[in-house]
Amino acid sequence: MPPEVNGVSLGSVGPGSQSALRRDNVRRVVAVLGEQGPSTQAQLTRATGLSAGTVASIVKDLDSSGRVTLTPTTSSGRRALNIHLVDTGHVAVGLDIGRRHVRALVVTPAHEIVADVQRPLPLGHDAETGILAAREVMSKALEDAGRTHSQVLGAGVGLPGPYDPATGRIGSGAILPEWVGIDISEALSAALQVPVHVNNDANLGALAHLGWGDQETGENFVFVKIGTGIGTGLVMDSKLYGGYRGLAGEIGHTIVVEQGLVCRCGNRGCLETVASTSSMLRALAAAPHPPTTTDELVSAALSGDVATRRVVEDAGLSIGKVLGQMASLINPQTILLGGPLSDLGDLLLEPVIRGLLRHTVPEIGGTISVRVSGLRDRAEALGGAVSVLSAADPAELYGPVAV
Amino acid sequence: MPPEVNGVSLGSVGPGSQSALRRDNVRRVVAVLGEQGPSTQAQLTRATGLSAGTVASIVKDLDSSGRVTLTPTTSSGRRALNIHLVDTGHVAVGLDIGRRHVRALVVTPAHEIVADVQRPLPLGHDAETGILAAREVMSKALEDAGRTHSQVLGAGVGLPGPYDPATGRIGSGAILPEWVGIDISEALSAALQVPVHVNNDANLGALAHLGWGDQETGENFVFVKIGTGIGTGLVMDSKLYGGYRGLAGEIGHTIVVEQGLVCRCGNRGCLETVASTSSMLRALAAAPHPPTTTDELVSAALSGDVATRRVVEDAGLSIGKVLGQMASLINPQTILLGGPLSDLGDLLLEPVIRGLLRHTVPEIGGTISVRVSGLRDRAEALGGAVSVLSAADPAELYGPVAV
Repeated sequence: MPPEVNGVSLGSVGPGSQSALRRDNVRRVVAVLGEQGPSTQAQLTRATGLSAGTVASIVKDLDSSGRVTLTPTTSSGRRALNIHLVDTGHVAVGLDIGRRHVRALVVTPAHEIVADVQRPLPLGHDAETGILAAREVMSKALEDAGRTHSQVLGAGVGLPGPYDPATGRIGSGAILPEWVGIDISEALSAALQVPVHVNNDANLGALAHLGWGDQETGENFVFVKIGTGIGTGLVMDSKLYGGYRGLAGEIGHTIVVEQGLVCRCGNRGCLETVASTSSMLRALAAAPHPPTTTDELVSAALSGDVATRRVVEDAGLSIGKVLGQMASLINPQTILLGGPLSDLGDLLLEPVIRGLLRHTVPEIGGTISVRVSGLRDRAEALGGAVSVLSAADPAELYGPVAV
Repeated sequence: MPPEVNGVSLGSVGPGSQSALRRDNVRRVVAVLGEQGPSTQAQLTRATGLSAGTVASIVKDLDSSGRVTLTPTTSSGRRALNIHLVDTGHVAVGLDIGRRHVRALVVTPAHEIVADVQRPLPLGHDAETGILAAREVMSKALEDAGRTHSQVLGAGVGLPGPYDPATGRIGSGAILPEWVGIDISEALSAALQVPVHVNNDANLGALAHLGWGDQETGENFVFVKIGTGIGTGLVMDSKLYGGYRGLAGEIGHTIVVEQGLVCRCGNRGCLETVASTSSMLRALAAAPHPPTTTDELVSAALSGDVATRRVVEDAGLSIGKVLGQMASLINPQTILLGGPLSDLGDLLLEPVIRGLLRHTVPEIGGTISVRVSGLRDRAEALGGAVSVLSAADPAELYGPVAV
């Protein structure tokens, strides 16, 4: 069967042909709907670079073959149709394993979060405990989402620490010292029985903002995870940047106090020794009503506790200083703060910005935007799911691409 | 005339055809010969990704039409032919304008440096003086090379300071405060009467290593210019990285001494206040036999002067500290030290490495290679010429590409 010249239907002919071109265009439209979620035809035209006519014809075909649904919306005040990919049943799981918690998100290739489960972990848990807990929350989340194990495309797992893809292990500066030396990727694959993609949690937080954040970030931005550890994920020219060994972004071990406290990495006075949530809690131990968890710390600061606010401010200034030096080096357009302190809002943001502006060159400080991530403490697990979906070919999930 | 199926000769037919493919392949071979210099067929095969047969056929055509010359060489112990592009007469000029010097290199698209001229500039010169001097050294260099002004494809100009491509101006942290606020690109174009590409000098130093350095750098490396100012050029995934506004790499203004000396950028205790060549000369003013120029400083250190060696060591430690923090952030494979202190060799390298290892995470420190740039203090001007050649289409210079 010859392909139609207007490209509305496709035969199966060789590469370089009209039909191969059409298949490729359909694939692009499906990929954008998966990455960016429900979109209007105008948005698809912009994002794919295809002509409005080509997009309209592809949408018509996807609709008549039941691959998308259309719902009325308004765009710039005009009536438009929002195009949603249908739910095929497939899901990606995002897992965020921290020092004190594990979280699972279940996400569809149609750009929908269908479950979100978390549970606490004992401080200092060994890798086996963490992996078992990850398996449990993943099962619970799949149950919540009404999906079966066989529908899981894979699990993207974020860990707080320098993860070396070459060895499958986390490095010695990690927040999970009990996990050092274990082939994490292998252990997780065996426990979860799905394909596993491991990455640093801050990298995954950054990845989530490529498609899921509502915030304008530009092509060069940084996601900062502030938690028990402090790390960054770097997006450069719209791509996650890992560096030579995938270890880029380790600002938690920038030394801010010469001869300061010894850090878990073996150095002294690293940023993490003064500005991680654990360091803040430790500093507050002598306060009249010391918070003992990150949640309590956030509540105390929000309710106006003077000691807590002071400790948060000092941590923010130190983080800002290091981010300012970072900005001088990589000149990002946007810095997004994430992690469990996100709810502090301006209480954290203001000293971070003050510290940053004091420690960066004026031309860079004057054009940078620093904000709290709109994805809050979900960014890392969400990025895990995104990493699975990016590795899958979303178009394949929607049956033969030629429509 | 139909194109021949074996692709040896080309008619002028439409895109997507055998002949368009062939033209594109010829273009790739010429580009690699321009970027990497004389190469064997095996090297061209590797660098272009084309098959050995295709490369052989293209080289045969380029040779018979007089576009390349072949000279015998040996490769891995076997006889081979080295393929050189012929000299078409065209040249690119690279200009490096510093605080105390200006240098011009004349480079052919055939990957040959045909002239290298430099002269000192008075400290604190205004932009007009600098631009006139640039015009003079460029004329002298063209004369040395036996080329005329009409053969100049363009001039790539490196300046020590944060150059903002959006405004055509250098920022307030610049080493040339007298130049701040001038539209440099426009002023230089008017004076030199050739197309001008302006960039930060450290960026150009990095660019020169993409093609001209003999050193293995990997895809992620940093060129550090240590001179009156300290800046870096970042190559990430084999491309020069500029960041949001083209200002990336400004490590000279990382604060290393809280409440230290006030820096020209308006902050205090920046790396430049303790480790630039000017800072070293200032620190040595109280010494028994103080060096007064960078050349004298290098000689004094090499001849064993204790005070000078100590000052070089302290500067190296501070530079290493900042590079260590940088390495934690961007995880480069290689760091190359350039600028007028290159001749210090291990006297500079050793404290830099010591400072770096003390201030970076062990996994990153353990895999990084820090060396003096083999291009020495020529890297910046050479990078200027490379920036012109990259913007030109080298294949066009060799006449109609279809052969």
